Amino acid sequence: MFPKKIIELLQIQYPIIQAGMIWCSGWELASAVSNAGGLGVIGSGSMYPHILREHIKKCKANTSKPFAVNVPLLYPDIDSHIQTIIEEKVPIVITSAGNPKAYTQLLKENGCKVIHVVSNVKFAIKCQEAGVDAIVAEGFEAGGHNGREETTTLCLIPLVKKHINIPLIAAGGIATGRAMLSMFALGADAVQIGSRFVASIESSAHQNFKNSVVDAKEGDTVLTLKEITPVRLIKNKFYNDLAATYNRSASKQELIELLGKGRAKKGMFEGNTDEGELEIGQVSSNIDNILPASQIIEEIIDEYKSSLMEIKQWD
Amino acid sequence: MFPKKIIELLQIQYPIIQAGMIWCSGWELASAVSNAGGLGVIGSGSMYPHILREHIKKCKANTSKPFAVNVPLLYPDIDSHIQTIIEEKVPIVITSAGNPKAYTQLLKENGCKVIHVVSNVKFAIKCQEAGVDAIVAEGFEAGGHNGREETTTLCLIPLVKKHINIPLIAAGGIATGRAMLSMFALGADAVQIGSRFVASIESSAHQNFKNSVVDAKEGDTVLTLKEITPVRLIKNKFYNDLAATYNRSASKQELIELLGKGRAKKGMFEGNTDEGELEIGQVSSNIDNILPASQIIEEIIDEYKSSLMEIKQWD
Repeated sequence: MFPKKIIELLQIQYPIIQAGMIWCSGWELASAVSNAGGLGVIGSGSMYPHILREHIKKCKANTSKPFAVNVPLLYPDIDSHIQTIIEEKVPIVITSAGNPKAYTQLLKENGCKVIHVVSNVKFAIKCQEAGVDAIVAEGFEAGGHNGREETTTLCLIPLVKKHINIPLIAAGGIATGRAMLSMFALGADAVQIGSRFVASIESSAHQNFKNSVVDAKEGDTVLTLKEITPVRLIKNKFYNDLAATYNRSASKQELIELLGKGRAKKGMFEGNTDEGELEIGQVSSNIDNILPASQIIEEIIDEYKSSLMEIKQWD
Repeated sequence: MFPKKIIELLQIQYPIIQAGMIWCSGWELASAVSNAGGLGVIGSGSMYPHILREHIKKCKANTSKPFAVNVPLLYPDIDSHIQTIIEEKVPIVITSAGNPKAYTQLLKENGCKVIHVVSNVKFAIKCQEAGVDAIVAEGFEAGGHNGREETTTLCLIPLVKKHINIPLIAAGGIATGRAMLSMFALGADAVQIGSRFVASIESSAHQNFKNSVVDAKEGDTVLTLKEITPVRLIKNKFYNDLAATYNRSASKQELIELLGKGRAKKGMFEGNTDEGELEIGQVSSNIDNILPASQIIEEIIDEYKSSLMEIKQWD
């Protein structure tokens, strides 16, 4: 009852990829998602190399199912991360924030399946040329990896689908079974889900951040920092400071200085919801509780099945 | 093979509502859409009262099927428009940009079905309280009536659906049969389609504007003018002037002065694509030709049927 391409490629039960969110996606979340039939993903962007190795080892110890590591290619010690991934025989790698040509061949030669994250058609085409196995196309709604074009998931998926023929994973704005079905109707082969898993028991996000996600209402997130790296944030004190800086037409340098170092860690991992950067998707407005990852997947699949049944019954 | 609520309420063949776009939606487009099985809509926001009456009369002369008039409630001579609609026994009225309580009762007493356009949950609830027959919920992607919250269609439809139980029409980012099916998967009862019909033979948009819609690529539109009335524009010379004005932290008054009078008419109706305001949805990036309205509807229905068939065949 699902599109086949991604579940066959990755050997998973459900076409649900957990996003590799910094500060939230350690081995606890990744192994829980994989055990529940999705693809669990370790987010290496917030890990030192030795920490990544520890998470991979613990993930392998806690699930026998496929899992992945997400690697932002602008990570300062990227070669070390790639080396660790190869040595630990991670079956699937999701690369992002960089040139898909850089590591795809090396990873594939070492037996990894490679998926790259894009937010526009231009990079989707580059990915296909680079020989990646699949693409994640991420819309304006998402908590990160957003494009400067502001193309929403509903507009992005058909555009990307028009230009590539490798398997396509839709991301941004997806947290429910109905949203998953809507993406399959558009032609996606699987979905990537981030925000819903931030608000899971196994997420390593600070409890304060999880609570902020549950509390977020319509209009409480905003896509910002396009001059540096576009990201969607909850409108907290830090965001208000940022908005004030924009309002006086500040330079990119001033924005970088205000951002400083460790803002995301402060907010998402240490729980300082005033001064920290709280990266989350717009769909947080539709997330009302913190559940175990397995229950999240079960609820998504149940809703998917019932909405699919509804559509099948139209005569 | 469609959700039933809207097609039964409005007595139309297909759950496709043509948006009542200013300068584009006269009687030619409205009657063509209604004759092809959708709901044709006259956009009264760019019409003097006597012009609206003429369009209604011509629409009635050219179709025996139901049609509607869209009325922005902030229209300066609104009472005159409402009076014309009642006198001409227009069967369906789509109100927008104002309080749904203002005219709903009067219109319903005079035999009209009333639909109101919203972009957030707060107004959706107000609409239901005001007794409207259905709601159009319009996302960030749309060419107009956008919310300041920037909620995309994919995030907005589930949120609105959670809070109301009257029929729900999804709008913003929809131009194809697959996108229509994706909205039904989310729980919408029909779709409203604007941009795709701007680029139709029967649209009264200037040929230059139609060509701009066909030429628009990813990232070529932007949601702006939130301080006045949020609207999505093609990035042309006028938009660049606007962006420069924003960049120097101009006041709302300066923006109003730059906008001036008649910018939309100049761009969309007179075809001055440099100095005019070109209002269009983000989905223009996925529109590649100018076709008769009947053929647009036929293509949407064909793609819808084939993608529905695809989904029904998953075992």
